[in-house]
Amino acid sequence: MNKNNYCVIMAGGVGSRFWPFSRNHKPKQFLDFFGTGRSLLQMTIDRFRPIVPIENILIVTNVLYRDQVLEQIPDLKAEQVLCEPARRNTAPCIAYAAARIQAMEAIKQKGERRKARIVVAPSDHLILQEETFRQTIQQGFDFIDKNDALLTLGMKPTRPETGYGYIQMGDEAKGDEARGKGICKVKAFTEKPNLELAKVFLESGDFLWNSGIFIWSLDSILNAFHAYLPEMANKFAEGENVMGTPEEDAFIQTMFPTCPNISIDYGVMEKAQNVYVIPSDFGWSDLGTWGSLYELSDKDENENVTLHSDATYYDSHGNIVTLPKGHLAVVQGLEDCIVAESDGVLLICKRDAEQQIRQFFMDAEVKFEGKFS
Amino acid sequence: MNKNNYCVIMAGGVGSRFWPFSRNHKPKQFLDFFGTGRSLLQMTIDRFRPIVPIENILIVTNVLYRDQVLEQIPDLKAEQVLCEPARRNTAPCIAYAAARIQAMEAIKQKGERRKARIVVAPSDHLILQEETFRQTIQQGFDFIDKNDALLTLGMKPTRPETGYGYIQMGDEAKGDEARGKGICKVKAFTEKPNLELAKVFLESGDFLWNSGIFIWSLDSILNAFHAYLPEMANKFAEGENVMGTPEEDAFIQTMFPTCPNISIDYGVMEKAQNVYVIPSDFGWSDLGTWGSLYELSDKDENENVTLHSDATYYDSHGNIVTLPKGHLAVVQGLEDCIVAESDGVLLICKRDAEQQIRQFFMDAEVKFEGKFS
Repeated sequence: MNKNNYCVIMAGGVGSRFWPFSRNHKPKQFLDFFGTGRSLLQMTIDRFRPIVPIENILIVTNVLYRDQVLEQIPDLKAEQVLCEPARRNTAPCIAYAAARIQAMEAIKQKGERRKARIVVAPSDHLILQEETFRQTIQQGFDFIDKNDALLTLGMKPTRPETGYGYIQMGDEAKGDEARGKGICKVKAFTEKPNLELAKVFLESGDFLWNSGIFIWSLDSILNAFHAYLPEMANKFAEGENVMGTPEEDAFIQTMFPTCPNISIDYGVMEKAQNVYVIPSDFGWSDLGTWGSLYELSDKDENENVTLHSDATYYDSHGNIVTLPKGHLAVVQGLEDCIVAESDGVLLICKRDAEQQIRQFFMDAEVKFEGKFS
Repeated sequence: MNKNNYCVIMAGGVGSRFWPFSRNHKPKQFLDFFGTGRSLLQMTIDRFRPIVPIENILIVTNVLYRDQVLEQIPDLKAEQVLCEPARRNTAPCIAYAAARIQAMEAIKQKGERRKARIVVAPSDHLILQEETFRQTIQQGFDFIDKNDALLTLGMKPTRPETGYGYIQMGDEAKGDEARGKGICKVKAFTEKPNLELAKVFLESGDFLWNSGIFIWSLDSILNAFHAYLPEMANKFAEGENVMGTPEEDAFIQTMFPTCPNISIDYGVMEKAQNVYVIPSDFGWSDLGTWGSLYELSDKDENENVTLHSDATYYDSHGNIVTLPKGHLAVVQGLEDCIVAESDGVLLICKRDAEQQIRQFFMDAEVKFEGKFS
């Protein structure tokens, strides 16, 4: 296994869109989402183990979840869990991990800089075809070995999804390492489209779903931060000597909260000129919504989805039901609803109202003083 | 307190209409229905304590529930719980209790027969104005002291309820003991009417709801059984010498299952000529249906009812929600539904589909081999 391969897992989310299934003390990435016995985080780590040495896997998370990470992934060392003292967005998260990898490389190589390759991935996505996924990552590593590129994975769309951002493909990349893999320059990133526009995107064949999975060399991403987020990059550079030492924690405690709340897409990818995309197809979902979970789950003859528990349906259609394991739901006269129970909270709402779930969560947080959060 | 006052509580029902709230192992009468800390059975007993000596209270139930009765009413002696070895209807239940009371009276009076007065009541009804209830019972006792009468309590209807049977009032009873109390001969018992007929009943002022609460003397009910259900009456008479002795149990085990499955209304009340009704008004519900529970519960501004648990409603109207204590329901986009969770079973159904709940229960019983029954 290539000792230069690094993996950065972003695991700081709170997943309130899946409340009450996800909770403040146990967000989505830590849940056994499908009742398989493995959490999404565990599945994510397992997916990388064959291609990234375990000591090169870094988890960036909120300090609140540090112990849960170490409990779920017992062969991680404590220092592999990077703790954000404040909730920022993906750019500071990735910059922190890059600074740490820089320090790790400096120690390993004793001054002789080799090409560290980094894959950055969310901790709470679903990937069905793991071998294809790893082949894609490997192709990405091969590409960035030869090119100073910020490479993103774009998913071939299968439906006019309005819940994802899209990437418009531009010219094909040149060179053996790109040939036959469809790697392209990125022409544009787009926000989540409305349904009409999503249909146009789908039909054009020029658009891919933005997966939030990135591949780049350490040098490329450090250069990009200095070019597009120089203030933040300088803050991290000031701590270069303490990264990976006992002083790192104090430095991060003070510095990190001063970082801007900005995403890597907005802060870097949309501005850089060397952004590429590798069209991918390995059964991916960001599991960002009940809708996406509903879409990819097995349905009965009335399009009802049941997860974890048993359920019997009468005159009911298009529902997604998840109760604690061993429980039974008997549902009559219900159409297109989400029914989710976890830890003393039962949510019943229309599937098309799921964007309100965050609000339900916040209302309950205030009303019940965090008891059900 | 009058030592001749007896009370027979019928507590053998399974209450599957309230599944999953009521369960085979814990039917409705044993549940703390309103979260007050007292079960319906306990509330029923408490209601009679001021007018019936505790040693004169008999509970007739299925042998399965014997221990639960004794646990919930610790000052009952074991022999006060009459166990039906098979599920019959109210006529055999009442005949069994009458036979036992006959034996108790024979012992107490050493041959000198006094006038034992019996009130028979279900164990799972709600009565809000308990003092008025007891005054009504006392008036009934006064009436049957002077008259060989089978007296039933008829509730003054407040709405065109289609879930109850009705009693049509006939001529007023004569005598001081009836005067001013409105006691009447019963002209007819009617089945549950449709809505149109129920409206006619309500407007006429001649009809009362059939409560299933009866008052009679021991002699009157024994005579009535001999007149209208002679075969069954003879079976009980054959055991006269063993009632109240250690041999009673063996006798009942053999004999009781041979009794017909027949209600007291159909077997006696609709046939006898000396049937009277006392118009009553003490805030009564048979709690026979979710609908009746919904009707009598406090509602929020959107006509939602929440029992036991917390609930927050969005765009929702006319629901009744009951979860285990300490749980929270968040409900959006739901109209006129029952949401009930208990012991690992969640039921969601339309309020107007509640007559199907028994079927849901039976389906689940078969499908899950009694696991959720």
